[in-house]
Amino acid sequence: MIPTDHPRARSLMTRERLVDGFRRNLVVAEGLIAHGRGEAFDYLLGERTPEPAIKAVRAAAALLLLSKNAVLSVNGNAAALCPKEVVELAGVTGAKIEVNLFYRTDERELAIKAELERHGARQVLGVGERASARIPELSSERRRVDPDGIFAADMVFVPLEDGDRAEALARMGKGVITVDLNPLSRTAKAARITIVDNLVRSMPALVQEARALKGKDATTLQQLVDNFDNDENLAESLAIIRGGAK
Amino acid sequence: MIPTDHPRARSLMTRERLVDGFRRNLVVAEGLIAHGRGEAFDYLLGERTPEPAIKAVRAAAALLLLSKNAVLSVNGNAAALCPKEVVELAGVTGAKIEVNLFYRTDERELAIKAELERHGARQVLGVGERASARIPELSSERRRVDPDGIFAADMVFVPLEDGDRAEALARMGKGVITVDLNPLSRTAKAARITIVDNLVRSMPALVQEARALKGKDATTLQQLVDNFDNDENLAESLAIIRGGAK
Repeated sequence: MIPTDHPRARSLMTRERLVDGFRRNLVVAEGLIAHGRGEAFDYLLGERTPEPAIKAVRAAAALLLLSKNAVLSVNGNAAALCPKEVVELAGVTGAKIEVNLFYRTDERELAIKAELERHGARQVLGVGERASARIPELSSERRRVDPDGIFAADMVFVPLEDGDRAEALARMGKGVITVDLNPLSRTAKAARITIVDNLVRSMPALVQEARALKGKDATTLQQLVDNFDNDENLAESLAIIRGGAK
Repeated sequence: MIPTDHPRARSLMTRERLVDGFRRNLVVAEGLIAHGRGEAFDYLLGERTPEPAIKAVRAAAALLLLSKNAVLSVNGNAAALCPKEVVELAGVTGAKIEVNLFYRTDERELAIKAELERHGARQVLGVGERASARIPELSSERRRVDPDGIFAADMVFVPLEDGDRAEALARMGKGVITVDLNPLSRTAKAARITIVDNLVRSMPALVQEARALKGKDATTLQQLVDNFDNDENLAESLAIIRGGAK
């Protein structure tokens, strides 16, 4: 349907991946709109991974490797865009995988679980009856979490997260790592580490970085984390967006 | 589904209008993503109509009133967001209404036509066999236009337009007026007048302004148009987006 001579063909094809995910019941209509928001910030970012994001990816990989009980929280858009990288990241870091949806239906949870399993996931938490614990102070369906997963985790990786939930997780004392193209969002501000970049680019980078850092001693990893200032990093990302990428 | 205590409830409800339009076959999935792009620029704009947009609305209203043969081009998102205002604007300015879709199907054209008629449109051009003329140099389905509508028009109002088509219309010598939240887009640059604002806010403003200017003499209207510099106006809008709206 997309003419190949269209100057924005590449961006339009990426949309098609989301739309395909929508047709396969991984993504909700609202998730398509949320993706569009990300597209615009990515446009302003110049559609490439900026220096602050490279630093954030390194610190995030170190923090995931240091965590005793990390969980990767997966929503529909993440499942449509990078199921393979989610499974790889879990493999390298030893993190668990949990499905957590803002617009929750059993059918969609199962579709996302199946998509992750198709890419090699051995265990997918948070589906159906498993999601019996609750995050306090949240009224959306996203408060329902797996007692063996997010509820017990010390560190939660929540890309493309809703601000309410990111804040609630932080208040529960959990470390939050996120990927968010909007450096002004509440999610970006609530997280310990925010990677301001397109998930499609930052997930492979995160897997690669985790592989590179695996086996380093805890002191080295801890230094990478301690030297990372999220507020400063967000300010740098915002300056790039505001300053005008080409 | 949306908790009323969610801080972004209002923005999420607006999304629901698009999603409702999607369920009623007015909007395509890609249109939802495009809306999300707009949301992000609107976020940076502070989600209010800035001064440059107020000036652009005034000049656009004057230009529509001056045109001998203006056409309002309607796509799925415009039909979902402001069918009433499209019909009102046509009524005040004497412009025709034409459906023109990037992702074209007969079913969707008819659904959009019906939606516009439900809001009082007497004639809707561009549907089915009517769209027999072609805009040169365009390979998307948007090149198919009505010989009695866009093909013959001296002025085309094309909100939420694709860059290719806006440029092709301008090359055909037609005056182009658009509404686009991205002041950097090719559409924004190709148009004679670009209103950098959310369509939901600028359409009612445009109808109101057209009513206020109707009956003014041609010299007064022409001055409003002549004094409007689109490049300058886009630079002002960009400065607001870049400068950081609250």
